[in-house]
Amino acid sequence: MRELRFGVIGWGYWGPKIARNLESLPHVTVAMVADLDARRLASLTASPNGLQTTTEIEAVFRSDVDGVVIATPVRTHYELARQALLHGKHVLVEKPLTANVEEAEELVALAETQGCILMVGHTFEYNPGVNELRKLVQSGDLGKIYCVEAERVNLGLYRQDINVIWDLAPHDISILLYLFGKRPETVKVQAHAHLLPSIQDVAHLDLGFADGMSAHIHVSWLHPCKIRRVTIIGDARMVVYDDTNPAEMLKIYNKGADIHVDPVVSYRFGAITIPHIDWVEPLRLECEDFVNSIRNGTEPRANGRVGLEVVRVLAAAQASLLQQEHHVSVVPISL
Amino acid sequence: MRELRFGVIGWGYWGPKIARNLESLPHVTVAMVADLDARRLASLTASPNGLQTTTEIEAVFRSDVDGVVIATPVRTHYELARQALLHGKHVLVEKPLTANVEEAEELVALAETQGCILMVGHTFEYNPGVNELRKLVQSGDLGKIYCVEAERVNLGLYRQDINVIWDLAPHDISILLYLFGKRPETVKVQAHAHLLPSIQDVAHLDLGFADGMSAHIHVSWLHPCKIRRVTIIGDARMVVYDDTNPAEMLKIYNKGADIHVDPVVSYRFGAITIPHIDWVEPLRLECEDFVNSIRNGTEPRANGRVGLEVVRVLAAAQASLLQQEHHVSVVPISL
Amino acid sequence: MRELRFGVIGWGYWGPKIARNLESLPHVTVAMVADLDARRLASLTASPNGLQTTTEIEAVFRSDVDGVVIATPVRTHYELARQALLHGKHVLVEKPLTANVEEAEELVALAETQGCILMVGHTFEYNPGVNELRKLVQSGDLGKIYCVEAERVNLGLYRQDINVIWDLAPHDISILLYLFGKRPETVKVQAHAHLLPSIQDVAHLDLGFADGMSAHIHVSWLHPCKIRRVTIIGDARMVVYDDTNPAEMLKIYNKGADIHVDPVVSYRFGAITIPHIDWVEPLRLECEDFVNSIRNGTEPRANGRVGLEVVRVLAAAQASLLQQEHHVSVVPISL
Amino acid sequence: MRELRFGVIGWGYWGPKIARNLESLPHVTVAMVADLDARRLASLTASPNGLQTTTEIEAVFRSDVDGVVIATPVRTHYELARQALLHGKHVLVEKPLTANVEEAEELVALAETQGCILMVGHTFEYNPGVNELRKLVQSGDLGKIYCVEAERVNLGLYRQDINVIWDLAPHDISILLYLFGKRPETVKVQAHAHLLPSIQDVAHLDLGFADGMSAHIHVSWLHPCKIRRVTIIGDARMVVYDDTNPAEMLKIYNKGADIHVDPVVSYRFGAITIPHIDWVEPLRLECEDFVNSIRNGTEPRANGRVGLEVVRVLAAAQASLLQQEHHVSVVPISL
Repeated sequence: MRELRFGVIGWGYWGPKIARNLESLPHVTVAMVADLDARRLASLTASPNGLQTTTEIEAVFRSDVDGVVIATPVRTHYELARQALLHGKHVLVEKPLTANVEEAEELVALAETQGCILMVGHTFEYNPGVNELRKLVQSGDLGKIYCVEAERVNLGLYRQDINVIWDLAPHDISILLYLFGKRPETVKVQAHAHLLPSIQDVAHLDLGFADGMSAHIHVSWLHPCKIRRVTIIGDARMVVYDDTNPAEMLKIYNKGADIHVDPVVSYRFGAITIPHIDWVEPLRLECEDFVNSIRNGTEPRANGRVGLEVVRVLAAAQASLLQQEHHVSVVPISL
Repeated sequence: MRELRFGVIGWGYWGPKIARNLESLPHVTVAMVADLDARRLASLTASPNGLQTTTEIEAVFRSDVDGVVIATPVRTHYELARQALLHGKHVLVEKPLTANVEEAEELVALAETQGCILMVGHTFEYNPGVNELRKLVQSGDLGKIYCVEAERVNLGLYRQDINVIWDLAPHDISILLYLFGKRPETVKVQAHAHLLPSIQDVAHLDLGFADGMSAHIHVSWLHPCKIRRVTIIGDARMVVYDDTNPAEMLKIYNKGADIHVDPVVSYRFGAITIPHIDWVEPLRLECEDFVNSIRNGTEPRANGRVGLEVVRVLAAAQASLLQQEHHVSVVPISL
Repeated sequence: MRELRFGVIGWGYWGPKIARNLESLPHVTVAMVADLDARRLASLTASPNGLQTTTEIEAVFRSDVDGVVIATPVRTHYELARQALLHGKHVLVEKPLTANVEEAEELVALAETQGCILMVGHTFEYNPGVNELRKLVQSGDLGKIYCVEAERVNLGLYRQDINVIWDLAPHDISILLYLFGKRPETVKVQAHAHLLPSIQDVAHLDLGFADGMSAHIHVSWLHPCKIRRVTIIGDARMVVYDDTNPAEMLKIYNKGADIHVDPVVSYRFGAITIPHIDWVEPLRLECEDFVNSIRNGTEPRANGRVGLEVVRVLAAAQASLLQQEHHVSVVPISL
Repeated sequence: MRELRFGVIGWGYWGPKIARNLESLPHVTVAMVADLDARRLASLTASPNGLQTTTEIEAVFRSDVDGVVIATPVRTHYELARQALLHGKHVLVEKPLTANVEEAEELVALAETQGCILMVGHTFEYNPGVNELRKLVQSGDLGKIYCVEAERVNLGLYRQDINVIWDLAPHDISILLYLFGKRPETVKVQAHAHLLPSIQDVAHLDLGFADGMSAHIHVSWLHPCKIRRVTIIGDARMVVYDDTNPAEMLKIYNKGADIHVDPVVSYRFGAITIPHIDWVEPLRLECEDFVNSIRNGTEPRANGRVGLEVVRVLAAAQASLLQQEHHVSVVPISL
């Protein structure tokens, strides 16, 4: 089997993690690491296994690597991914794919023209809990889905280039798209910038779907507890996916309200089931999908078009946010 | 000490509870119980202690009772409370006070003219956990308050006369008014009617305050778990009030994010404190306040003006809901 | 249906609870309450429904009541129950039945001679969670039972007439006997008196059964948390019964270790199931069983022979405790 | 600073973990890895940084390494540590130090004669939660300590060379010795072999101390839940240390029972405090202590004498177990 060689651009939080996971796969080598900040690369020089480091990003594009991992701030994703694709490299870019819809559309088109894999780091699509949840949704066991409540809150970490919606909501939006395979029709946002001016740190997104399903996403950098939870409410069953509780990641509640004539509503209360989930590190599965897609010429699960869909929803949320700020569409309380 | 005599109108869920608590107070008698449904009164006839029952509501007003408890559907609150006040009775009415602002204003004015106590059953203002929380807020220990997240969700019980906002949000609105003593300036609602047409069963309210504080209220009849939680995020400390966890009702997190020049944001992580709360049944304290206010001619904590404030916020929420339905103020996703 | 009349002896913690539950049953009257302490009876005089109160206990035996409830300190159980039976009264006595085996044997024999019901207040035999657990054990779904771990700990309340074993362990012993229907062969105790001299406040009991099953009971008045938990470990499944968690009272773990040749042990990890339990107040079911047994001349579930079995285990535990104190059967650490 | 070179014997669970932590320290190299099973070493050959692997254990002793890590089955600890010390190597051996007291005493003496560091892998002595707990105990804030309850239970992993006491209890014994700095006087064991004949898989240890303090240790390979908890009950405060809950590792309960004349016992209920703990990987701190002790010629925290103390308690437990099997010191239930 041919050795695949990769370059990693950006040696901050995600770069080293993805590099370590790629390296753990058979016949895969991380050959280059690039970062504008030489200090970040210092720890790498000790390693004697032929790894090249550089502060000149373009060197990665000119090298002989097969694929490039882009783990840099969002605003640079488009330009770096474009360069990589133009040099014929396969690309895995951290989420969100780009900072606006047009750039995402262009990258998707370019990847197709160049015959390169374009993939986005939507890790939760590779999370075994989310995949069990998806099986459950698609089996029909939950019945008709009424609504979804997603929460992703914690203290920090503040980012100054993007607000909390662009930082945290990509996870929940990619989970929703992956679970249900349908695009919301409308997005309404209620967001507030408490700590830093004009950088929203608490936000509530309301997504409306054509079939009446609603989804609510709560993201926050200002919360005392770490909550990562998705609750799905079907007319037959309800499920809570709690990413912070490995031993009880999915809880399936066999309960619900049923409509009748008299009395109009009755209630069912049945057992709770917690399926066992065979855990594999999501980032490892993500890296495997990237490598296998390159080897087999197939589309990865979190491909560019999925990344584009997520950016569409984020852009609609951002537009709703601006609209909220410019128009008084709210109801003042009469005095 | 003079014996106080009370009549209770409505013998459903709250009527018997309030009657039992009133009866447990010294020198207090529940003398009459009225309900349109004679079957509900059947269980009471066995009691030999002179209690009168009737299906003719007006009999209560004509009787010699000092005060009347109104525990009936919301749409009847105004008319029953008005009649009671006109007959010179002190009134304790279940929450919300009325179904609209005008009626609430009229009752408040009438109570003043008649020199009667008008009180609303905002039980949470008498909850020892909420009172400990209020002390904490008012001590300044939390610092500047950024935002509040309130959740009150569970499966059921559906009501057909009012939506989930009018059913559950009065609790959270009265808690917020009681804690902070200030009125929100704006209310925005995202609500959905999933089970029954046009009766919203899931709602998110966003309250904006003049000083930049925001509050978010999530109420739902469609949720697998019983959650009754208020999270307050201050710049010095954060608190979670969990009404379903008696042993750890308040959790005070000494943590936060601070603004600096470089790095712009730093984080503090300190101890969590869980104060001991001496528990007394809130409904008992509420009944005591009603009785003491009558005896001493003082204003009860949850007086008519507080009830009016809560109705103002509910009415603004309802208006936002209608606006949401009639105008497309949301952002459609570009295709 | 003939009215049944009861007398209650002892108006402390359990007396009023049992009286209220008896009164709530159709055609049942609590006609007399007796307590040596007149102050405890004061609150009852206000009640105008013909209830008699007395500080002369014998008055209850001479009255026309059908049955007597004995809710007094353990040391008085034997004499009071004996008197009641001799007067032809049916008897419900709080647990444990008596303070030693001989007295319990005598009461069981006397009840038979007199043709009276003798019942013990083993409330947990009427707990819907315990009954669901019993169905599970008896269905064979758990497989062969290896061992049981029972915990019943909390801060307080100290008693000065009996140690923590006699106070708390009757619950767990009656649960074990009820679940498995077999008597332990041996009892070994490790207990300590920390707060008051010679009154053990922390104890661990080890019960050995003929078939190799073991059970461990941990009872304590000195613990920061309220724990009431029974864990049953079968070779097919394991269950945790947590009496303090109404929403998840039983958790059935489909997991275990299996013996093979190579590797010798393998592990199974499957789903967790939490059955829905229809809750009825155990004390109400206990009172119903007492009343029905009297009416129908049948044996109640928690009958005198069951009470005797529990006393046998308690007495063996007490003997082990004395043995532990008098003999040095422990291993000193070599210096 | 001089480079320190280490050899690791045993490449199973702990060997690679310790090696990785040693390697992460400045000026430290893992130069040799030895294991009798060549397959385990296979994954290491790829590494090009001069690491030597061997299936001949003695090669490590003859090499120029400064220290040896022994991460092999317990029965081999003594002989391997002895050889290493005789060759003048510093030694870190996994817990428990040896399989009996005599061997442990000999190793401690030999290390002294040879002027070598002898250290045992009692990781929990390096756990930041345990260290915070120790500060608490030693500050006197808990008051007089009445008793300790330690639980360490989970499903698996079964070992066939040693029972669950020798496998899991070393952790709790080393924690107790570290927290209180005193040796128990007596050890009593109640243990059962459910799955494999004569290998106890469930055990309860009762430790008695000269000053009346008692400690109870529950270890099990047969339990549905992973519990790692130590509860300390003082007359002023109580603490729960829960190793499985990083966000609330220590919970300090300001509650207790106090002795009076009348009423004899009263109860205090105050706040709960959860201190923030700055987390560092315990194994890293353990490896640092090993390296620093070698460099500075000082005694490590988990030195040989501490390891000997733990073995003393284990040996007493084992003796109590044999005594339990051979003598009938228990109380049979009378029929």
